[in-house]
Amino acid sequence: MINPFDDTYFMKKALEEAQAAYNKGEVPVGAVIVIKDRIIARAHNLTEQLNDVTAHAEMQAITSAANFLGGKYLENCTLYVTLEPCQMCAGALYWSQISKIVYAAKDVKRGFTVMGTTLHPKTKISGGLLEKEASELLKRFFIEKRNLN
Amino acid sequence: MINPFDDTYFMKKALEEAQAAYNKGEVPVGAVIVIKDRIIARAHNLTEQLNDVTAHAEMQAITSAANFLGGKYLENCTLYVTLEPCQMCAGALYWSQISKIVYAAKDVKRGFTVMGTTLHPKTKISGGLLEKEASELLKRFFIEKRNLN
Repeated sequence: MINPFDDTYFMKKALEEAQAAYNKGEVPVGAVIVIKDRIIARAHNLTEQLNDVTAHAEMQAITSAANFLGGKYLENCTLYVTLEPCQMCAGALYWSQISKIVYAAKDVKRGFTVMGTTLHPKTKISGGLLEKEASELLKRFFIEKRNLN
Repeated sequence: MINPFDDTYFMKKALEEAQAAYNKGEVPVGAVIVIKDRIIARAHNLTEQLNDVTAHAEMQAITSAANFLGGKYLENCTLYVTLEPCQMCAGALYWSQISKIVYAAKDVKRGFTVMGTTLHPKTKISGGLLEKEASELLKRFFIEKRNLN
């Protein structure tokens, strides 16, 4: 039997969140956190609306998932996020001991890989899923922003 | 004329916050953010009480200061914090472009220095102020915790 709840399914949900950020004029990044095929947190970047550099999609999703679980460690959880996490978010994911991170687009300037941020040894990581969709939304955002200024 | 509002004065305020965390059974770390000799944010670690790995003193202080200022960049602001920031907090401070960070105790295991986290080029940093007071409170906390288990 085919499981409809695969990585692509959940990344599409993260992309829906990124689209919601885009619609609000926010840098379009979205995230969901999943445990046993169930989405327990959805979030999108809100740094402009909240005037808060800490309001990245991942940070909100971590807080939300921990609140749902009633514990701060995200054991058996997977984060799907449309852009590679930054130092701050990777640092938060380190503390959360999350089991898996799946990201779409690579952030070659400020992603945790190029910045050398350490993840928890328990955390598995993979990148590139639906990268094209995530990147195109980001590119569209920055092109439109440039044309407005 | 002597200015009573020097770095030591504000670090003592951060230590008061650390003591407040200690009194709640939290890892005792406290922070204040100051602009023009005025404290605009006070916070202490609340990771246990909020069940949230993102609830470090610095993260709350950043959000609070930005809220006070009505903008997300902490220009002309100084963070006083009783323990060297971790990857997550240093990553958030990077985004905030804060002008100065003064920390007390060094975190040789998980501090941003040993972890190699990048701060913003605009940010000045100094460590070691009231280090003894901050370290002793942390040591006391961990000794007592060990004896309880």
